[in-house]
Amino acid sequence: MKQNDIGLIGLAVMGQNLVLNMANHGFSVAVYNRTAEKTRQFLETKAPSQAIAGTETIEAFVSALSRPRRMILMVKSGQPVDDFIDQLIPHLEKGDVLVDAGNSHFPDTERRIEALKGRGIQFLGMGVSGGEEGALKGPSIMPGGPREGYTAIEPIVTTIAAQVDGEPCCTYIGPRGAGHYVKMVHNGMEYGIMQMICEVYDLLRFGLGYPSDRISEIFQSWDAGPLGGYLMEISWKILARQDDDTGQPLVEQILDTAQQKGTGKWTSQSALDLGIPIPSINAAVVARMISAAKDERVRAAGALRGPSRALPDDDGTWVDKLRDALHGSIITSYAQGMALIQAASAEYAYGLQLDEVARIWRGGCIVRSVMLEPIREAYRGDPALPNLMLNDHFTRQLNGLESHWREVVGLAARHGIPALVLGASLGYYDMYRRERLPANLLQAQRDFFGAHTYRRIDRDGVFHTQWEG
Amino acid sequence: MKQNDIGLIGLAVMGQNLVLNMANHGFSVAVYNRTAEKTRQFLETKAPSQAIAGTETIEAFVSALSRPRRMILMVKSGQPVDDFIDQLIPHLEKGDVLVDAGNSHFPDTERRIEALKGRGIQFLGMGVSGGEEGALKGPSIMPGGPREGYTAIEPIVTTIAAQVDGEPCCTYIGPRGAGHYVKMVHNGMEYGIMQMICEVYDLLRFGLGYPSDRISEIFQSWDAGPLGGYLMEISWKILARQDDDTGQPLVEQILDTAQQKGTGKWTSQSALDLGIPIPSINAAVVARMISAAKDERVRAAGALRGPSRALPDDDGTWVDKLRDALHGSIITSYAQGMALIQAASAEYAYGLQLDEVARIWRGGCIVRSVMLEPIREAYRGDPALPNLMLNDHFTRQLNGLESHWREVVGLAARHGIPALVLGASLGYYDMYRRERLPANLLQAQRDFFGAHTYRRIDRDGVFHTQWEG
Repeated sequence: MKQNDIGLIGLAVMGQNLVLNMANHGFSVAVYNRTAEKTRQFLETKAPSQAIAGTETIEAFVSALSRPRRMILMVKSGQPVDDFIDQLIPHLEKGDVLVDAGNSHFPDTERRIEALKGRGIQFLGMGVSGGEEGALKGPSIMPGGPREGYTAIEPIVTTIAAQVDGEPCCTYIGPRGAGHYVKMVHNGMEYGIMQMICEVYDLLRFGLGYPSDRISEIFQSWDAGPLGGYLMEISWKILARQDDDTGQPLVEQILDTAQQKGTGKWTSQSALDLGIPIPSINAAVVARMISAAKDERVRAAGALRGPSRALPDDDGTWVDKLRDALHGSIITSYAQGMALIQAASAEYAYGLQLDEVARIWRGGCIVRSVMLEPIREAYRGDPALPNLMLNDHFTRQLNGLESHWREVVGLAARHGIPALVLGASLGYYDMYRRERLPANLLQAQRDFFGAHTYRRIDRDGVFHTQWEG
Repeated sequence: MKQNDIGLIGLAVMGQNLVLNMANHGFSVAVYNRTAEKTRQFLETKAPSQAIAGTETIEAFVSALSRPRRMILMVKSGQPVDDFIDQLIPHLEKGDVLVDAGNSHFPDTERRIEALKGRGIQFLGMGVSGGEEGALKGPSIMPGGPREGYTAIEPIVTTIAAQVDGEPCCTYIGPRGAGHYVKMVHNGMEYGIMQMICEVYDLLRFGLGYPSDRISEIFQSWDAGPLGGYLMEISWKILARQDDDTGQPLVEQILDTAQQKGTGKWTSQSALDLGIPIPSINAAVVARMISAAKDERVRAAGALRGPSRALPDDDGTWVDKLRDALHGSIITSYAQGMALIQAASAEYAYGLQLDEVARIWRGGCIVRSVMLEPIREAYRGDPALPNLMLNDHFTRQLNGLESHWREVVGLAARHGIPALVLGASLGYYDMYRRERLPANLLQAQRDFFGAHTYRRIDRDGVFHTQWEG
């Protein structure tokens, strides 16, 4: 049997497209899927002339690979990953490289790396972002784990990754779960930016009464400027799409209950563990939860009051104000994510290079935007930058945006159109730039009821007051 | 040696006060502390005439208790609890009851109950709220675990608990970690309400320029009305307090960096796991984190711009508007916490009675307020109430508050005074009462890049669109 360059297990759409991507770049690929029928269909319909070898048993799959074997798992995160590892182990040899390219939770990846190290197998946790299209044409790739394992797959993953300015959107991220950690935070930012766009859409659609095609044009014009990015692009394309059946904008036929798969939630939970504030991302996760409770919302809509009119008449200034509110908010989403990655790098000794992370996000991935190059420059110039908002480029931008941004958040609040994430982002900005916060009262409260003590502004030491009597 | 009714390990301030509370009610108590010196000091200075027996070894402690033994651990959560359990185990007998009264994380409690069950020891996780004073004069007590163990301590805990309308603020909460779960969420609500009060204080102090003693008077007047509660009460008392050294309001000498011990974080993490939106509590946890980054804030204050003036001149209406914003926000904090408890009860089969939870929070605990009786009535009338905001009493209140509430959130946003939690609370209200949210665009985005599919408003089924080309 021919010895293929690499193997891939899991022929859902992401897996299929990664296989085609590798084959299109001249790599020979062996594939395996739990149900053989899917493998046959894939080979017949999508990959008839490619150098792709279908296999119907794990043994055949493993035998079809040159050694040391290079194998990619692209299956549902959680138990399926462990199941396939268990199936593979008896057939693997020392030096083989097994890559989990799904959205696994980073502690699971760390556990698996540790478990397989004892058997001499290099296990990598590799974030892959870019969706269907990215997987096929060039995703952003975030591999983490033993460096030796990375070296074995480097020629392949750097070739199939998106290329920007002649450089691949792929680099070795760091040891252990570093790759999946960075991918997780990428997705957290993605949650934030998606919800910000949704809130601005809501203000335009139901606040100002703009039709979908007009909003599409507005978003398209923003996409051509400093807000340019993949999520902006797909949003205007979505809003331009007509429903074949009803002739209405398709987006308006879609049920408003968002789903989620875990990476946003994990990002929030990790930030809580590390003590890093990411209120925009938290609020985006919350927004999906509230959207899911449609029955309750329908009931509440008849009971809980709000202003009777949406927004004041459009005086022609709101589109620009909304653009600036979105711009400021998106900067904070990146700022929060990068701060979290920085903290994780310190806590888990990942040794991450934030400029490199930003570099490989410039192409292929879901959060790619024109902001990534200045983010890269910010961290290249100052690897220890405590917060992106303190970089000159972004400070200047924010200072030019904050006035419109707060007008939008104020307007949304007064007129009852929820802008949870735009508001949380402005709150983050306003808290972060506040030398003196009211936490003095909070520390006094804690000392009052729990004798938790406090510090003073005028001298060192730890103090406790007998507040009563 | 005399056989005491109960024993307590851990003589920090909460432990000492619980011991005195029990002794004051006629129970004989054996005490033990890791450092014997603290035990001696306690007996000499605070408990000279009480029926309290000091012991200096674990063996002596265990020998000083009538059987089956009843023992309370009041030590730092985490490893210290496990350490004391390990020390105690060799000396315990089948049927003995060991109660962890600290703020342990509920999964730890579930693990310990399970581990000790095999040895025939009844382990209880018991939330105790009320701070120092509550521990001494009557806390709110939330015991969970094996019911047989609860029965053994019931006569003591119901006697030392706060009493409201002749009923003890203590009831059996439920099996396994139910007691610590409910206490954790209690603390999450506490985080929310504390930060809401701080934000209103900030708007009064730095927005409107009111001096601390005037704010104290305002808070005192609010404490006498529908906002009445323990946290309101301690806040006005704190604000009235002068610093002996400087002659200034003491609160203004306190450093504005808040600390936290974990229960708020755990509440947010658990809500993420259960898919329950608690944005106000999340934002309160975040607010403590941002306050802790004082160095960064000082740096940012010189770089990131905001409005040059604080608030517009006080036209005499803002105090009432702030009161209403606080009132609406506090209702949402309770609503979020109760919704979370309800979801946990279903997920973990705790069988919680929400009306009983509200009942035992009416006295003794930190979140006690005049709102707890109507909360109790809401869940007594409808145990499956999906959200407190849908109860008639609270719906009516919110409908009378929302207009002022949104004015305050809008004002804070426009004028650059952060109101992260007041804003998150209003956002929760406005999202929850919205029949149609912009999650339709979000589902389209997910389907665009990840083929995640969507549902439609006009017919059943799961749909996917080829959005490009």
